[in-house]
Amino acid sequence: MSIIKLAVLGSTGSIGQQSLDVVRALPQYFRVVALAAGTNSELLDRQIREFQPEFVFSLDKTFASQLVKDGKFLSLVEMAAHPDVDRVIVATSGMAGLEPTLAAVKAGKKVCLANKEAIVSAGELITSEAKQSGAQILPVDSEHSAIWQCLEGERQKPAGIILTASGGPFRTFSTKALDSITPEQALAHPSWRMGPKVTVDSATLLNKGLEIIEARWLFDMPIEKIRVLIHPQSIIHSMVEFTDGAVKAQLSCPDMRLPIQYALGYPERLTNPGLPRIDWDGFASLEFEPPDYERFPCLKLATEAGLKGDTYPAVLCAADEELVRLFLAGRLKFSGIARNIERTLLKHQATGKPGLEEIQAADAWARKTALKLAEGDVK
Amino acid sequence: MSIIKLAVLGSTGSIGQQSLDVVRALPQYFRVVALAAGTNSELLDRQIREFQPEFVFSLDKTFASQLVKDGKFLSLVEMAAHPDVDRVIVATSGMAGLEPTLAAVKAGKKVCLANKEAIVSAGELITSEAKQSGAQILPVDSEHSAIWQCLEGERQKPAGIILTASGGPFRTFSTKALDSITPEQALAHPSWRMGPKVTVDSATLLNKGLEIIEARWLFDMPIEKIRVLIHPQSIIHSMVEFTDGAVKAQLSCPDMRLPIQYALGYPERLTNPGLPRIDWDGFASLEFEPPDYERFPCLKLATEAGLKGDTYPAVLCAADEELVRLFLAGRLKFSGIARNIERTLLKHQATGKPGLEEIQAADAWARKTALKLAEGDVK
Repeated sequence: MSIIKLAVLGSTGSIGQQSLDVVRALPQYFRVVALAAGTNSELLDRQIREFQPEFVFSLDKTFASQLVKDGKFLSLVEMAAHPDVDRVIVATSGMAGLEPTLAAVKAGKKVCLANKEAIVSAGELITSEAKQSGAQILPVDSEHSAIWQCLEGERQKPAGIILTASGGPFRTFSTKALDSITPEQALAHPSWRMGPKVTVDSATLLNKGLEIIEARWLFDMPIEKIRVLIHPQSIIHSMVEFTDGAVKAQLSCPDMRLPIQYALGYPERLTNPGLPRIDWDGFASLEFEPPDYERFPCLKLATEAGLKGDTYPAVLCAADEELVRLFLAGRLKFSGIARNIERTLLKHQATGKPGLEEIQAADAWARKTALKLAEGDVK
Repeated sequence: MSIIKLAVLGSTGSIGQQSLDVVRALPQYFRVVALAAGTNSELLDRQIREFQPEFVFSLDKTFASQLVKDGKFLSLVEMAAHPDVDRVIVATSGMAGLEPTLAAVKAGKKVCLANKEAIVSAGELITSEAKQSGAQILPVDSEHSAIWQCLEGERQKPAGIILTASGGPFRTFSTKALDSITPEQALAHPSWRMGPKVTVDSATLLNKGLEIIEARWLFDMPIEKIRVLIHPQSIIHSMVEFTDGAVKAQLSCPDMRLPIQYALGYPERLTNPGLPRIDWDGFASLEFEPPDYERFPCLKLATEAGLKGDTYPAVLCAADEELVRLFLAGRLKFSGIARNIERTLLKHQATGKPGLEEIQAADAWARKTALKLAEGDVK
């Protein structure tokens, strides 16, 4: 296997840092040629010293101007499409991931996609561009990685997909108890090490709804054939049902480095003794239960937005991003997230077969509208 | 996919009948060109009328002589190697499966192997012959089919195999309670529809031990890397561990038609709405526990015989076959099976790299010895 040259977009975030952990563990396979981060310049600086990339992006103006002086500065879009880059890890959070993802896809890259918003908002656009350019979208989400691993070697279209969900920290909470959840409670997620936005989305199950839409595009599978199953242990990361009644599942300890590594190394499954192994003597059962759409309305809202398609998923994503920000600032109740996503979706006038501009317009409209609609709820 | 021509050896047994069920469900893919049975001539006769095979074998002398007159009679070995046959389903029970398996392997056939004794007793011989002839051995056991399905599309040797076991009907019995089990109790197996010999082997866990040795040969995996895990629900049929910490599992309702169909149709996974689907709302958990080698000594004896190799596995199989027969006749206690297998193995003088003759000699010696050693126990 020849050295794979990586661009890590969002290198100081949770997935970005864990991607670099994988490179540290398997230096014989990978070289980091580009790093991009937001405003955590201290960490970015350390990463630059360690990995010596050719190209760097920073949102921090002082830091960026130094990078320009050094001749290292490149925009996200330039980085994503650069001929020296083999694989682009899109680990930025939110809609900032969309344009570099599209650039990487158009350039025919292998795109290791950890950013949900891009594929959810612009799934049709991204997948049709990928078909034209020959780009491959390699999922980094543990669920989609599991599905992808289960599909390897299968020649026939599957009958369905079962997305597992931990159920979040409030799985057993009553509707009333859910109403008064604090940001601190929401950020204490049991299974995975993740950023704050994804952690809140996991608690509302909106995240699982986004994953339904993501699976719809990544695996060309109708939403109706994608089922969510609550599995609190987070050992089975998802399953695929076949047309003969067989089901395949992928299991592992909950550690994002595994799906990251699988996407970085694919089609090779690289040996890594540093990743945790399931301790078969350490647990007695894997539990399952159907999701409760009443207590977790975000899951239903996302499914409906996915079924409607067009610009609805973009509106879902954008409204959620703004409302989660309000919640994390202590200005909106937990239940206000779902309520105001629903209100925003109800007001939306969709655009069919949206291009980048229409998606960005729907995104901007949704942010404004969600914030406006939430005003009455805001503390 | 062109029509696949099948020889079904053991067509009136449980696996044979279910193989014919698969052909009935998918007549566009398969044609039965040969049927072989023991003494259940009434059922064989009905099967002949239904499937109109060119070749038939029967152990019933009257029936066989009629077949000879009709020009349809062929021996198992002739059938297994016949040029008109694409795939041979070896679903005979016991050592009778060895010679036809070897004949099919030498003729370069695709061998759908449901007979454990052949591959356990002569694994080295069969796999080395298959390498020479290009024959493929396609497992029909649900466990080995699960492992095989999980390995599809994987390019790297796995780190290990996890064979699941229902634990049998006596999983929770004390050593004392196990001592007084009757044949009637042993034949009331909870999950699978199987013949009496396999059902008793499932109750003693000897069957799981044979599967360890079978997996060793089918997947070229050292015994040390094959682990048994008790899983009473029989939904996960086995798992494979990879070198990055990922695990894949295959799940389905316990129905032998699925692994049979997978072996018959491979590499295609054929759509069959007649096979049962897992009802995800119908169960809440999948449980696991380590096996108890003290209460189920057959599992330990089989592992040790597998580790020793040579003619030990043949002795294990043959002794078990005789002792189970005694048990089913009500003449030996349940615990007498393990005790006398152990005694027989202890007395054995192994032959290294055994050929067919040495294996048959070890088999004959083991039967005689096991019966002699069991004399003191016989009621």
